[in-house]
Amino acid sequence: MGLKASLVVLSLLLALALASASAKQDPELKQCRHQCKVQQQFSEEQQRQCEQRCEDYYLQKQERKREEGREEEKGGGDDRKQLKECQKQCERRQQKGRSREGCQQRCVEAYGRKGEDQPRNRRGKEDQEKERGREWVNDRYEEEEEEEGGESEGREESDNPYVFDREHFKAIVETEHGRVSVLPKFTKRSKLLRGIENFRLALLEAEPNTFEVPSHWDTDAVLFIVEGRGTITLVRQNKRQSINIEEGDIVRVEAGTPVYMINRDQNQKLIIAQLLRPVNLPSQFEAFYGTGGQNPESFYTAFSWEVLEAALKTDRNKLERLFGQQQQGAIVKASREQIEALSGHEEGGRWPFGGGESHGSKGSRSFNLFNKHPSHANQHGQLYIADRDDFKELEDMDVMISFANITQGSMIGPYYNSRATKISFVTEGEGYLEMGCPHLSSSRSKHSRHQKQQGGGGGGRTYQKVRAQLRRGTAFIVPAGHPVAAIASKNSNLQIACFEVNAENNVRYPLAGKRNIIDLMEREAKELAFNFPSRDVDRIFKSQDEEFFFAGPEEWQEQEKGYADE
Amino acid sequence: MGLKASLVVLSLLLALALASASAKQDPELKQCRHQCKVQQQFSEEQQRQCEQRCEDYYLQKQERKREEGREEEKGGGDDRKQLKECQKQCERRQQKGRSREGCQQRCVEAYGRKGEDQPRNRRGKEDQEKERGREWVNDRYEEEEEEEGGESEGREESDNPYVFDREHFKAIVETEHGRVSVLPKFTKRSKLLRGIENFRLALLEAEPNTFEVPSHWDTDAVLFIVEGRGTITLVRQNKRQSINIEEGDIVRVEAGTPVYMINRDQNQKLIIAQLLRPVNLPSQFEAFYGTGGQNPESFYTAFSWEVLEAALKTDRNKLERLFGQQQQGAIVKASREQIEALSGHEEGGRWPFGGGESHGSKGSRSFNLFNKHPSHANQHGQLYIADRDDFKELEDMDVMISFANITQGSMIGPYYNSRATKISFVTEGEGYLEMGCPHLSSSRSKHSRHQKQQGGGGGGRTYQKVRAQLRRGTAFIVPAGHPVAAIASKNSNLQIACFEVNAENNVRYPLAGKRNIIDLMEREAKELAFNFPSRDVDRIFKSQDEEFFFAGPEEWQEQEKGYADE
Amino acid sequence: MGLKASLVVLSLLLALALASASAKQDPELKQCRHQCKVQQQFSEEQQRQCEQRCEDYYLQKQERKREEGREEEKGGGDDRKQLKECQKQCERRQQKGRSREGCQQRCVEAYGRKGEDQPRNRRGKEDQEKERGREWVNDRYEEEEEEEGGESEGREESDNPYVFDREHFKAIVETEHGRVSVLPKFTKRSKLLRGIENFRLALLEAEPNTFEVPSHWDTDAVLFIVEGRGTITLVRQNKRQSINIEEGDIVRVEAGTPVYMINRDQNQKLIIAQLLRPVNLPSQFEAFYGTGGQNPESFYTAFSWEVLEAALKTDRNKLERLFGQQQQGAIVKASREQIEALSGHEEGGRWPFGGGESHGSKGSRSFNLFNKHPSHANQHGQLYIADRDDFKELEDMDVMISFANITQGSMIGPYYNSRATKISFVTEGEGYLEMGCPHLSSSRSKHSRHQKQQGGGGGGRTYQKVRAQLRRGTAFIVPAGHPVAAIASKNSNLQIACFEVNAENNVRYPLAGKRNIIDLMEREAKELAFNFPSRDVDRIFKSQDEEFFFAGPEEWQEQEKGYADE
Repeated sequence: MGLKASLVVLSLLLALALASASAKQDPELKQCRHQCKVQQQFSEEQQRQCEQRCEDYYLQKQERKREEGREEEKGGGDDRKQLKECQKQCERRQQKGRSREGCQQRCVEAYGRKGEDQPRNRRGKEDQEKERGREWVNDRYEEEEEEEGGESEGREESDNPYVFDREHFKAIVETEHGRVSVLPKFTKRSKLLRGIENFRLALLEAEPNTFEVPSHWDTDAVLFIVEGRGTITLVRQNKRQSINIEEGDIVRVEAGTPVYMINRDQNQKLIIAQLLRPVNLPSQFEAFYGTGGQNPESFYTAFSWEVLEAALKTDRNKLERLFGQQQQGAIVKASREQIEALSGHEEGGRWPFGGGESHGSKGSRSFNLFNKHPSHANQHGQLYIADRDDFKELEDMDVMISFANITQGSMIGPYYNSRATKISFVTEGEGYLEMGCPHLSSSRSKHSRHQKQQGGGGGGRTYQKVRAQLRRGTAFIVPAGHPVAAIASKNSNLQIACFEVNAENNVRYPLAGKRNIIDLMEREAKELAFNFPSRDVDRIFKSQDEEFFFAGPEEWQEQEKGYADE
Repeated sequence: MGLKASLVVLSLLLALALASASAKQDPELKQCRHQCKVQQQFSEEQQRQCEQRCEDYYLQKQERKREEGREEEKGGGDDRKQLKECQKQCERRQQKGRSREGCQQRCVEAYGRKGEDQPRNRRGKEDQEKERGREWVNDRYEEEEEEEGGESEGREESDNPYVFDREHFKAIVETEHGRVSVLPKFTKRSKLLRGIENFRLALLEAEPNTFEVPSHWDTDAVLFIVEGRGTITLVRQNKRQSINIEEGDIVRVEAGTPVYMINRDQNQKLIIAQLLRPVNLPSQFEAFYGTGGQNPESFYTAFSWEVLEAALKTDRNKLERLFGQQQQGAIVKASREQIEALSGHEEGGRWPFGGGESHGSKGSRSFNLFNKHPSHANQHGQLYIADRDDFKELEDMDVMISFANITQGSMIGPYYNSRATKISFVTEGEGYLEMGCPHLSSSRSKHSRHQKQQGGGGGGRTYQKVRAQLRRGTAFIVPAGHPVAAIASKNSNLQIACFEVNAENNVRYPLAGKRNIIDLMEREAKELAFNFPSRDVDRIFKSQDEEFFFAGPEEWQEQEKGYADE
Repeated sequence: MGLKASLVVLSLLLALALASASAKQDPELKQCRHQCKVQQQFSEEQQRQCEQRCEDYYLQKQERKREEGREEEKGGGDDRKQLKECQKQCERRQQKGRSREGCQQRCVEAYGRKGEDQPRNRRGKEDQEKERGREWVNDRYEEEEEEEGGESEGREESDNPYVFDREHFKAIVETEHGRVSVLPKFTKRSKLLRGIENFRLALLEAEPNTFEVPSHWDTDAVLFIVEGRGTITLVRQNKRQSINIEEGDIVRVEAGTPVYMINRDQNQKLIIAQLLRPVNLPSQFEAFYGTGGQNPESFYTAFSWEVLEAALKTDRNKLERLFGQQQQGAIVKASREQIEALSGHEEGGRWPFGGGESHGSKGSRSFNLFNKHPSHANQHGQLYIADRDDFKELEDMDVMISFANITQGSMIGPYYNSRATKISFVTEGEGYLEMGCPHLSSSRSKHSRHQKQQGGGGGGRTYQKVRAQLRRGTAFIVPAGHPVAAIASKNSNLQIACFEVNAENNVRYPLAGKRNIIDLMEREAKELAFNFPSRDVDRIFKSQDEEFFFAGPEEWQEQEKGYADE
């Protein structure tokens, strides 16, 4: 009851918080406020906050409109102006408690551009190494390498096999206007990841006003829109479907479907995280460009001219001209008019109170994660989850998508997933991760296996601590059963998007706070298990009365000084 | 509308065309003609053609009956006579525009027999090598080999990993009267085929009037009857089921089912293509012969005599006698009386107008592909497809079966399958194949990976052209997403049977002709993608107004001279 | 009809036989007798036997109660007394025709303890080697080894890859009070087992009055209670479920579920066979102990103190104390009071006449195999089977469980499973196994592959005989399609529990006795297949009129002298 009520409150607030603002008499605003009033469980204070959120949202919307108008007048404007605009937006964000650093960084990336990224990452690596110390897993994983044909060269050496920095993403498409990058296949990293060897994680980043040329891939894909506004077009038998996408949208693209997209924003990058499951080969995929010419090369040119002439009833000269023009690569600049024409025209009002029920309905191919009430939410963070019940298209890949927004200075967990493996991607903010890994421990100890086995009678395993810095762009894996916690820095919320594979019947078991697994055991079980008076066990496991999201460590800022801010 | 009507016409014609003839007042003939008349969409010319087909069919049927009668009088006849008879049939075929070469070849194989095959194939190989030239994929795939236990010896070295000649099929059963041969496991060929590593392709060829002795296999199987007339008997718990089979029939045999079969034709070989999916090991299977003696060895003899005596309540002497008699191998000659007795007796009139609806119904275990209307058909060819909706037994293996009959001088494609991988087998005729293979390209370029990656910004991949001669007995693989076209020689139709694995939700995307994927894109998308005026793009992609099957290249015969005719 | 009737009789008798006894006017006894009377198909003799079984059961129940009472008075008693008591029980068992040896052995193991096991196994190995002779598979399997990362060292060398002795089980948990042991991953043994590489077989043995501390595992599990009486507790979201378990119970534990259990018997070991299917890695799993301290190490300690302090809102000192107490390992001694408190309290009368219908109902997590009528039963043995229809929880793992009780001097089979692979475990008695293995033969003959292929025309394969001694604790694998028979010694029943994987649509094909596969073939098929008059074939395959279980070989005892008794 009480719980459900407060969840409703929170989810109202939080759905709004994702796009917050402040203003007067727009119909959307009106409806938003109305919704605040009819929530009977709201206290007066809650109602006030709710309305405030409505106003914030409205304000932001207005602002965006005004800017878009201005942009259109200018016809695009030069980079310096756009940079300024972008930085202003960041300041507004900061006022609302969201991280400014990442935002500013992106402004520079987008309009000051290039050459900045590399050194930053390098610095990060050094800090990380210094910071790591005694507790960190830091030996090499070479002995875990799977020997696969010609793949053995170029082994990755990594501190722990579960965390990937931005630099691990390798570009498979890269032009002046954007790039598609992908993590190496997981088994190349470590045999411990062979449970997810059929999956790959990719990242699309496209500059404003760009077009990604049509292609089909021999891989199933689930796309999660991390940032920006675009339109994705899928060509199916006999028909074409254009879907407008924005932050939080989930799109399923079936293997082999011709697809193209635009970044229709004039300022913001379009960033899309993609979970891929190749259909021909367990972990390899290729893009097939039908259109194009020399770059990207069109697959039409793989046919002999005789066959093409017959198939297209067109003579060779014309064909050679057609397939010789495109030289700019797979992501190209588009004019405002082209962008307009390629934008989907049934944008379908997505609104905080829309709920998760309708978008995932049959036939539809996109769903916004933030339309759902968060499954867990309190002042320390919110967790949004979309599974096959929300969006039927996730079913055949057995994937669930979740998004955690961890309030600055707070943390999520410790908890574990009973059977799903999380493939996570930090979309915003900074923090760190702690995880207990018995497999890591057992594979590391192979050298001294015999001592191990002779050693004492218990579970026999120790848990290797994995601790890793998280920042925008970090990817990490949390295998099933592994206890994990993620802690946001004191300066910014930490936002993490997760693809959870092997999702069916997964259960999230909390290890602290309300309904933690220890709390549910009998008195005698606790006593025998801990060899400690059950009253004392209870005192400890009943102290925390929040659920899932908690206040983070007090000492964190001191201890990790110079690390969150780099 | 118009389309559907013309498809009906075509499918009527074509279903008939598969077994054509010419004559008077048989009830079957009567019904056939009647069907021609009631098709309202038919023009007079079409009606005339339709009736002609009915007559052709009837004629052939009569002829066959007469021959069977003659054969029975002779009590089998000697090989020379049969060879002559066979060659006569070929001439009749040729008059109807079907290839004579393949047919004559088969006559020699059947009645002139042995020792001819080897040199012919070798010649083929040489021609192929000469013909291949600059465009062909011709380096070795050793570096792709999967190292698997003792399997590493005897590596296949192949031009491209997707095409298999007749000589690649290795005999696992071979007697005077027939043989069962199988392609090596696909991963032995190339790692690029590991997506289908759980499947094997086998081929049964049995002489007329033969019996394949009972056995069960530790593999699921789908059988496609390429040629001939037989009866297959499945032993299930408590009951036995005999199914008469003929060209176009599909039979599902579950792993472990005891099965035996006869070739009940007196002249024609029985040829069956089999897709196997082993249940014990990813790509290995074995036959288990319960009956038999020393050759095939009965598995009963794997038990000690003590156990057999107790189990069968029979003393050792008798058992030794029983299990010592069979020495002729797994395919033996049967008398006319035995053949008669073993033939199924509920042949169930299969008739061109029967439609695909009833045969696949629950409990039934065979279905004729040609009972269905072709899914695509025009004067350049026809495509027949059977999926799980037609024949429920295909569901658990996620397999679809298709058969393309490409008119001489015509071609199928270019097109691609969105998620299915085709395992194809040429059942008749000659021609060639073109396919664009980015995986091939990327795995080949591993040696120079770094150059590749630094190289320009596009998709990054080039498409390796695969081009291969096709002739009766060639097998080839088309992975999902790969653009492919197959071209029939000017002299004979090219007929290809395909097992398509990973069939669920597969979509065939045409790359030329009606409804091709380029045509479905917006004007702006074409413009941006090709960097070319959209009007010119349209002119090219709208020129071809056929669908799926097209007239082949004009220059083909000249250019490939001496190749189609060998 | 007649068959069904006699099956009812048998199953009544046999269900009772599993827990037999003799006495007067207890309500349970009354009902049991009543059930005997109302079975209309019973002859007078059968009725008498039925009632006798009821009385036996009752007697045993009384005895047990009395002993438990005595035990409680003594407060546990010393080992010597318990050993005597245990041995007395064995003698009573022997009077009822069950094996005494195994029982006595267990008494020594339980109360005389340790150091006895090793030499016994070694002796067995030697006997085995002597006995093996010419027919046995005895060369090494090194060439079959899969090269996997650091796993290649410590290769198993085995006579045949399908049989595992007790010593192959390696301890992963071992304390003074019990142990959990597991077979090495199957592919480490032989590549021929890679079809079941995702499964592992484990064995829990816990002393009387013990507690196995809470843990969750990254593996799905099916538990079969081999012996003893315990309580297993599963923690699910928000609730806890305690299930009392006894011989024949099947429990499904989903991956990640926190679980703990007790052996609540004061005399008998609790022995549980477990089929595991890891969820993170194909054949590796780990235990995760949340409770515990230093041994087993709690995974809580993998988190930093800062994070734990924040999550549990408790200061570090208290936490260090909590997680430092447990030093006794994962299986600890519990007091009578603790055992009482941890016992499930809804024991739910399980009674021979309960039938198999209700226990597997939705929500329930245990099912007793012996509540079902045996699927096959005669004086030579009984076969009990539980599949997904009986116990829905088996469905997602596609597992079936069977239990064969082979009467002393009798045998099961020869037969084969059409698609399931059996992972079997001998729970009681002695005997031997015979199996025909063509895969074994083909992999062994790799060295001389070329001769093989040139060699004669038949199936091409020979069947490698596998013959192996079976005794309590032996595990063995029977792949799909492989003909197998198991023979009980003359001195004791042979009892085998089997997990059958790949169970859906599996068919058991008998190779002898009623409805054997040869019998179902046409006359002509037999004639052609055996090259032998069909009348003589029939005479042999119709001699045996029992079904599935038969009288064993007469000569067995002589021939194998000194072996069954060691």
